[in-house]
Amino acid sequence: MSGSELEGFTFPRSATGRSGLVPAPPWHYSGDLLTIEYRTDPEAVAELLPPPLSPSAEDPGAVAVVWADWQSCSDTFEELADPVRAQYKECFVVVRCRYRGTTYSRCVYIWVDKDFALVRGHVQGYPKKLGDIWLTRPVTVGRAGPRLEPGGRFGATCAAGGRRLIEATFKISGPSEGAGFVNALPMLHHRFFPAIEADGSDSLHEIVTMRGYDTELGPAFRGEATLQVFDSPTEELTRLAPQEMIGGYWRSVGTSWNGGETLEATPR
Amino acid sequence: MSGSELEGFTFPRSATGRSGLVPAPPWHYSGDLLTIEYRTDPEAVAELLPPPLSPSAEDPGAVAVVWADWQSCSDTFEELADPVRAQYKECFVVVRCRYRGTTYSRCVYIWVDKDFALVRGHVQGYPKKLGDIWLTRPVTVGRAGPRLEPGGRFGATCAAGGRRLIEATFKISGPSEGAGFVNALPMLHHRFFPAIEADGSDSLHEIVTMRGYDTELGPAFRGEATLQVFDSPTEELTRLAPQEMIGGYWRSVGTSWNGGETLEATPR
Amino acid sequence: MSGSELEGFTFPRSATGRSGLVPAPPWHYSGDLLTIEYRTDPEAVAELLPPPLSPSAEDPGAVAVVWADWQSCSDTFEELADPVRAQYKECFVVVRCRYRGTTYSRCVYIWVDKDFALVRGHVQGYPKKLGDIWLTRPVTVGRAGPRLEPGGRFGATCAAGGRRLIEATFKISGPSEGAGFVNALPMLHHRFFPAIEADGSDSLHEIVTMRGYDTELGPAFRGEATLQVFDSPTEELTRLAPQEMIGGYWRSVGTSWNGGETLEATPR
Amino acid sequence: MSGSELEGFTFPRSATGRSGLVPAPPWHYSGDLLTIEYRTDPEAVAELLPPPLSPSAEDPGAVAVVWADWQSCSDTFEELADPVRAQYKECFVVVRCRYRGTTYSRCVYIWVDKDFALVRGHVQGYPKKLGDIWLTRPVTVGRAGPRLEPGGRFGATCAAGGRRLIEATFKISGPSEGAGFVNALPMLHHRFFPAIEADGSDSLHEIVTMRGYDTELGPAFRGEATLQVFDSPTEELTRLAPQEMIGGYWRSVGTSWNGGETLEATPR
Repeated sequence: MSGSELEGFTFPRSATGRSGLVPAPPWHYSGDLLTIEYRTDPEAVAELLPPPLSPSAEDPGAVAVVWADWQSCSDTFEELADPVRAQYKECFVVVRCRYRGTTYSRCVYIWVDKDFALVRGHVQGYPKKLGDIWLTRPVTVGRAGPRLEPGGRFGATCAAGGRRLIEATFKISGPSEGAGFVNALPMLHHRFFPAIEADGSDSLHEIVTMRGYDTELGPAFRGEATLQVFDSPTEELTRLAPQEMIGGYWRSVGTSWNGGETLEATPR
Repeated sequence: MSGSELEGFTFPRSATGRSGLVPAPPWHYSGDLLTIEYRTDPEAVAELLPPPLSPSAEDPGAVAVVWADWQSCSDTFEELADPVRAQYKECFVVVRCRYRGTTYSRCVYIWVDKDFALVRGHVQGYPKKLGDIWLTRPVTVGRAGPRLEPGGRFGATCAAGGRRLIEATFKISGPSEGAGFVNALPMLHHRFFPAIEADGSDSLHEIVTMRGYDTELGPAFRGEATLQVFDSPTEELTRLAPQEMIGGYWRSVGTSWNGGETLEATPR
Repeated sequence: MSGSELEGFTFPRSATGRSGLVPAPPWHYSGDLLTIEYRTDPEAVAELLPPPLSPSAEDPGAVAVVWADWQSCSDTFEELADPVRAQYKECFVVVRCRYRGTTYSRCVYIWVDKDFALVRGHVQGYPKKLGDIWLTRPVTVGRAGPRLEPGGRFGATCAAGGRRLIEATFKISGPSEGAGFVNALPMLHHRFFPAIEADGSDSLHEIVTMRGYDTELGPAFRGEATLQVFDSPTEELTRLAPQEMIGGYWRSVGTSWNGGETLEATPR
Repeated sequence: MSGSELEGFTFPRSATGRSGLVPAPPWHYSGDLLTIEYRTDPEAVAELLPPPLSPSAEDPGAVAVVWADWQSCSDTFEELADPVRAQYKECFVVVRCRYRGTTYSRCVYIWVDKDFALVRGHVQGYPKKLGDIWLTRPVTVGRAGPRLEPGGRFGATCAAGGRRLIEATFKISGPSEGAGFVNALPMLHHRFFPAIEADGSDSLHEIVTMRGYDTELGPAFRGEATLQVFDSPTEELTRLAPQEMIGGYWRSVGTSWNGGETLEATPR
C-alpha cells in the first residue's frame, strides 16, 4: 500500500494519468485565423521585451492581433468525438523581438475560453487568461455570413470580466500570398512560475522557443481592417493602441505541436 | 411629457425599439446541421401530441435529434459584425404529427445557448431552454477534425444544469439526396403563455405553423449514427430513448424566416 | 395511442409536466438586495410609459437600479437541494407610473443569469435578458468583504454580450427604516407576445399587476451610492443616466409569489 | 528604447505589472465552506501519494470533499468593489499523507470557476481545473433556504465539461467544535511544470507546504451527509467513491495567505 510515481503530463497527476488537464503532446490543431496587423508606438512594444530581448530593428511598432477558432486534440484523437474537449476560441496579441541575433514572434497578451487550452498555453509560455472571444464565420449557403471572396465582411471581439477589450472588423479585398509577418516567426516566450515563498523570486524562469510542424495552410485572403482597444482596470491594451493599420488576413490553418526548446533557464 | 406607444418586436420595448431582445423579422440563418434519426416507442411520441394532434400513421415512433451550429442576423445584417449577437448552437428533438389531415414536423424539446435565440424560438413555438451544445466541425486542413467525405467522424453533445443529456456520434458513409424525413415538413407548434393569475389557464394558447423561405442547401452526407440519452430530474429524454437507429445526416443550410400562420387561437 | 392534454406551467409541456422550464407557483424567494436610487431626466422615464400609463406626479425622474442575489424554489422546495436550479442573480431598472389613479412600480430593463428565472420573469411581465451580474457580499469573518455596519463598502456590476452596462458602489452609513421608494409599490407590467404572422400585431397584450406575499424583511442599511451606465448597440441605459443621486439601500428579503391580476387584455 | 525587467506576480508580466492575472500576495479570503468526510478504499488514497509521501497511518482511507463559496482580494482590496474579480466557487477533494514524519492535508482534485483563482491555485500546488460549482446558501429570511440551525438542509454539486461529477447533501444536526480533520492540517502539495521539450521531464518539480494566517472562524455546524461521485472520461472520482460516510460540517471561514515553504526542489 505505497504509492508509486504519478502519471500525467499536467496536474492533477494520478495513478493512471487519465485525470490530467492537458494530455501529453503531440497536439493537433485545425482552425480559422483572422490576423489584423497595425503599428503602435514602438516604445509600447519595447517595454514588453525584458533584456536580453530587444525590439526588432525593422518595423519595431508592428503588432498582430489574432482571433483563432480552433478544434484541437491529442494524438488519441478522442477529443474530436466529445467536442466540448476539442473546440475553443482565442484572441492574442503578438509582437516581434530580437534574441541572440534572431528575430522571433512573441505573444504578449492572450485570452482563451477553455481550461485545457489555458494551461496548455501556459506550458508553451503563452500568458493566457480566460475571455469571451467571437469571430464571424464564413458560410457557403444562406444570407447570414460572409463568403470567402472579395466583399466578405467579418467582425471579431474579445471580452473578459464582462468588459469589452478589443473589437475589430475585416473586409476581404482579394487573395493573399501570406497571412501577415508579425506572427509568422518561431515564438520566443518566457515561462516562469513564482516561488511558493512569494518573495519576489521565481522557481521557474526560462526562455523557450517553439514552432508547429506538419503545418497545412488553406488559401489566404487579405483585406482592410479596423481595430479598437478599450480600457480595463486589469489590462493595458490601450498602451498598444493602433497608430496606423497595416491590414488583415483570413486563413484556415492546420498544425501540430510536439515540444519546443529551452534557450535559457535561470537557476533557482 | 406623456409617453406614446413603445417600439420593438419583443421586450423590452422602448421609445426607439433598440433595446428589444429580438429584432423584427425577417431573420436570416446560415449553419451546419447534424440530424440523427431513430425509432422510439410510438407511445412516447403520442403522449407529446395533445388533441387535436395525432401521431403520424406511418413510422409513428420516428424521432430526429438535430444539432445546429448557426450564424443568424436580422435584415440589417449588423449582428454579423458583432458575432456574439449572431452565433449560437442548439440541439432539438423533433417528431411528426397529424393535424387536420396534414402531417407536420414538431419540436418537442430544445436547448440553445444564447438569449436572443431562446426568446426568438419562443415566438415560433419552440420550447427552448438554455443548454451547452457541442458539435464537431468539419475541417479542410490539419488533423484536428473530420473531412466531409466517407470516414469523417463527428461527435455531438447537449448538457443543461451541469448534466449531460444527450450524446451522439456520426460517421459519414457517403453523399445523400436529403437530410432525413422527420424534420423535413412545415412545423406545427403550440404557443402558450400562462395567465398571470396562475390559475391553470393560459392567456395565450395557439396552434401555429411556419416554414423558412429562400432555403439554400449545401451538399448532404449520410452515415451511421449512435445516440444516448441520460436522465435528469428536469428532463424526460429517457422516455424517448432510441429502440432502433435510422441514420444520420450532415448538411449546411441557409434559410430565412418572416412569420408563420396561426391555425387556431383559443379565446381567453 | 392518442395524446391527452399536456401538463406543465410553461413549455416544454409533456405528459407528466416534469420537463417544464418553470414549475407552477407558488414560488419562494430569499435573497440580498442592493437598491440604488437616483433622478434622471423625467422625459427619459416618461418615454418608457405607453398610454394609458403616465408619469408619477411627484419625483417623475426617480429611478431605482436593484441588484438581487437570489435563492428561489417551487413549493416542493426540491430546487434548494440542487442549487444550480435555485440560485441566480439579477439587475433591474425600476421607475414609477400612474395607471387609473394609482401609482405603481414598473421594471423597464432587467438582466438575469439563469433560464428558469428569465422565463419566470417573462410570465410576470419582466422584460428579462441574460446578463452577468455581480454584487459584493457582506461577510462575518475575514478581511475579504464588508460587514453590515457603517463603512461597509459594496460594488455591483451588470454586463451583457461582453459589454459592461452598469457599475455602482455603495457604502453603508447607518441603519434605515426602509429600502427606497421607487421599487416599493405593486408592479405594473405589460405582458405581450408578437403574433406569429410577424405583421406588427401582438397575440397577447395585457396590463397586469402583482405583488409578493408573506414578505419577510431583514434589517435595512442606507448609504452613499454611485452609479454609471455605459453605451451598447442593444441597450439604451445612457438615456436613463443619473443626474442626481438619491442614495442606496441593502437588505435581505424573503417573499413568495402566487399570481397577479390582469387589469387589461386587448382582444386580438 | 530597450526594455527593462517586467513587473507582475504572474503572467502576463508588463512594464507596470497591472496586467498580471494574479496580483502579488498577501491574499485575503472570506467564505462559506461545506466539508463532507467519508472513508474510501485506502488503496485509492495511497495511489495518489507518490514517494516519499506515504499514507496516514490512522484512518488512511479518509477523504474530505469541500465546497467553498469565496470572496477574495489582494492587499489593495480593490477587487471587492468589482466583485467579478473577487467571487468564485470551488470544490476540492482532500486526503492526508505522511512526509518526513509529519502528517499533512493534500488536495488531489479541485474545480473552480474563475481564472484568477485557477492560476492562483496552481501557484499553491492545487491541481485546479474549471468547473461549475453550486452550494446551497443559508438564509435569514423567507422560505427559499435553510437556516443555520438543526434541520437546515443543503445541496452541493460539481460539474465539468457538461458532466455532473459530484453531488452531496448535508443536514445540520447541531453545533460542532470543529469542521473535520482531513482538511485541517497544513497542505503538502507538489508543484510541477513539464519541460517545453515534452520529453517526459519536468522543468519545475517541488514539494511545498503552506497554511493560512489570521484565520477567523465562524460558528461550526455538524450534520448528516450523503455524497455521490460519477464517471467521466477525464476524471477518476469513482476510484475514490465513499464506502462509509463520516459526516458533514458547515462553517464561515476568513483567512489570509502570504506564501509557503519549499520542502524539496528537484534540480532540472
